[in-house]
Amino acid sequence: MTLPTLDILGIGNAIVDVLAPTDDAFLAARSLAKGGMQLIDTAQAEALYAAMPSGVESSGGSAANTCAVAAALGAKVGFLGKVATDQLGDVFAHDIKATGVHFPTERLAGGAPTARCLILVTPDGQRTMNTFLGACVTFSERDVDAAEVARAKVVYLEGYLFDPPAAQAAFRAAAQAAHAAGRKVAITLSDPFCVGRHREAFRAFVAEEADILFANEAEILALYETDDFEKAAAMAAADVEIAALTRSEKGSIILSGGKRHAVAAQPAQVVDTTGAGDAYAAGFLAAWAKGLPLAEAGRWGSVAAAEVISHYGARPLADLKELVA
Amino acid sequence: MTLPTLDILGIGNAIVDVLAPTDDAFLAARSLAKGGMQLIDTAQAEALYAAMPSGVESSGGSAANTCAVAAALGAKVGFLGKVATDQLGDVFAHDIKATGVHFPTERLAGGAPTARCLILVTPDGQRTMNTFLGACVTFSERDVDAAEVARAKVVYLEGYLFDPPAAQAAFRAAAQAAHAAGRKVAITLSDPFCVGRHREAFRAFVAEEADILFANEAEILALYETDDFEKAAAMAAADVEIAALTRSEKGSIILSGGKRHAVAAQPAQVVDTTGAGDAYAAGFLAAWAKGLPLAEAGRWGSVAAAEVISHYGARPLADLKELVA
Repeated sequence: MTLPTLDILGIGNAIVDVLAPTDDAFLAARSLAKGGMQLIDTAQAEALYAAMPSGVESSGGSAANTCAVAAALGAKVGFLGKVATDQLGDVFAHDIKATGVHFPTERLAGGAPTARCLILVTPDGQRTMNTFLGACVTFSERDVDAAEVARAKVVYLEGYLFDPPAAQAAFRAAAQAAHAAGRKVAITLSDPFCVGRHREAFRAFVAEEADILFANEAEILALYETDDFEKAAAMAAADVEIAALTRSEKGSIILSGGKRHAVAAQPAQVVDTTGAGDAYAAGFLAAWAKGLPLAEAGRWGSVAAAEVISHYGARPLADLKELVA
Repeated sequence: MTLPTLDILGIGNAIVDVLAPTDDAFLAARSLAKGGMQLIDTAQAEALYAAMPSGVESSGGSAANTCAVAAALGAKVGFLGKVATDQLGDVFAHDIKATGVHFPTERLAGGAPTARCLILVTPDGQRTMNTFLGACVTFSERDVDAAEVARAKVVYLEGYLFDPPAAQAAFRAAAQAAHAAGRKVAITLSDPFCVGRHREAFRAFVAEEADILFANEAEILALYETDDFEKAAAMAAADVEIAALTRSEKGSIILSGGKRHAVAAQPAQVVDTTGAGDAYAAGFLAAWAKGLPLAEAGRWGSVAAAEVISHYGARPLADLKELVA
C-alpha cells in the first residue's frame, strides 16, 4: 500500500508553551538573555515558574508551530516529536491533530513529563524562552519512521533538536531517508545560542545534508562566525540549494541558483514575536510545496509571520488562506 | 494571632479553561446553547475536546477570575476551590498565586482530575461553556475555613457552586461564618441555566443570606421567573442590600437603600465575552472594599469588564489600576 504524499514532515521538540508578560527588570534580575532560548532543568523550571506571572498555555515547539501554520495554509503535514502520557501531552497531541497534522510518534510513559517552555514576553514584543526539555530528550532514531519521511516532499528539521543528545542521530537518519527517497531536507537554525552550542555539527549538517536553509540574521552570522551578513549569505548559498534568510522588519532574502530575491516584510503591529520564524518557514514551504515561485513563497512566509506576531502566541488566529490570497 | 484582613474571599469552582475559536454551525451540530454553560461528564468532555479546534489553556473559574481581577486592582484577596494534584492543578495554583491571591485549599489526590471548561468562542465574541467539574465535586463544608471567611470584608460566592452537590452546604457554612463575624455575603447568579437548575435554592439563599447580589439580565429574569426587568430588579432590591445588575452594552444598574444608580458601559471592541461578569464583580467589590461610592464601584466594574472582553481569555492583560485611575 502506498501512503498519500505529504507536503511537509516536521521533526522537532514537542513542547507546551507557557507565555507570560514580564519586563526587562525581571529578565535582568535572572541574567536571562533577551530574545534567546536557554535550556533549564527541573529545579530551574520550578524556580522560574514560581517567580513568573500568571501565564497562558498553548502548544508550541518550533517545527510543530511550523507544521500547524503550514496545515492552516492548506498543506498536507505530518509531525514527529515526543510528548509524555500526561495532561500537557494530551494538550499538545490534541492541538496538533486539530490543525490537521498527522502525529504518529509514540508517547513516553513513566518517564519525564511533557516538555514546556516558559516564555517571558517583554513590552517590546520580544520573547525570552526557557525550555525544560522533559520527554523530548528521549526522541531518537527509533522515532524516525522512514516511510513517513519518504512520503513527504520535504522533511523539516528544527535546529533546537541538536540539544537533546539522541536527536542528532535521528536528524541524520531522517535526512538520509529523505534523500534515499528523492526528497528534500530543510533545516532552520532556530537560535544563535543553539548554533553556538553545536556549531560544528550544524556546519557539517548544512553542508552535507540540507537542501533548504532557514535562518535569521543573528543565526546565519553565528553559523559562519562572521559579522558580515553578505559574506554569511554567500556561504549559505554555496552550501544549500535554497537559503531563506529573514531580517525582521527588513523582510527576507532568498538565495537560490545564483539568483537573489528580496521579499518585503508585511506590516504588523508587534505584540509578541514568538513563532515569527516558525511561521515564515511554514508559509515558505507551503507555497514551495505547491510549486509557487520562490518570491511568492517568501511572501507567504512574510504574511504568516506578520499574523502570528500581531497577537500573543505562536499559532495563527486569523484565516491564513484568506490572508495569502 | 489575628490574621490580616482580606477585602474579598472568593469561593468557587477551580477550573482551567480551554478556549478555542469556533462557529455557529459547530454549536448547532451539537445542540449547544450559545452563551450558556452546560455540565459535561468525562465521556462528553473527551468527545467534545476531540472535535474542537486547537485551544489555549488559561486558569479560569468564575469566582477565581473575580479574585484575580480584584487582586490586579489592588484588593487583598483569598480564594477557596478544589484542584487535583496534577499538571492542570499546578497551572491553576500557580496562576492564582501569581496574581497575589491567597489560595489555601488542600488539593485532591488520587481522585478526579482538575476541572476544565471547554469554551467555544464564536465570531460574535460570545462564549459557550462546557464544564467538566472533575475535582470540584469534592469541594465541601470541610474546605470552608471559618477563619479565612471571618477575616474577609465580603465572602463572594459563585452560583455555579450550586451544581456540585456537596458545595451547597459549603455555601451555607460560609455565609453563616461571614455573618457571625459581621461580614457581608455576595453572590453572583452565574448563568440563567444554572439558576433554572437550582431556582428554589437560589431564591432562598438570596433572600436569607445574600447582602450583595450580582446578576445579568437573563439571570435575574430567570431567578424571579418574569420577563419584566423592572419587576425583577424591584424583587432583587427587596431581597438584598445591594443589587448590581449588568446589561451588557447598556451598562449596569445598582439598587441600594431605595436608590438607583445607572452606570454606563465602557466602550470596548468585543473579542471574547468570557469573564465579563466576573470582571465586573471584581471591579465593583474592589472599589466597594475601599469604601468608594456605589456609582464609582459600578464604574470600576465596567472598566474591568471592558478590558477582559477586548481580548481572548477571562483575566486582564492591561494594567487595571491605571485604567480605573
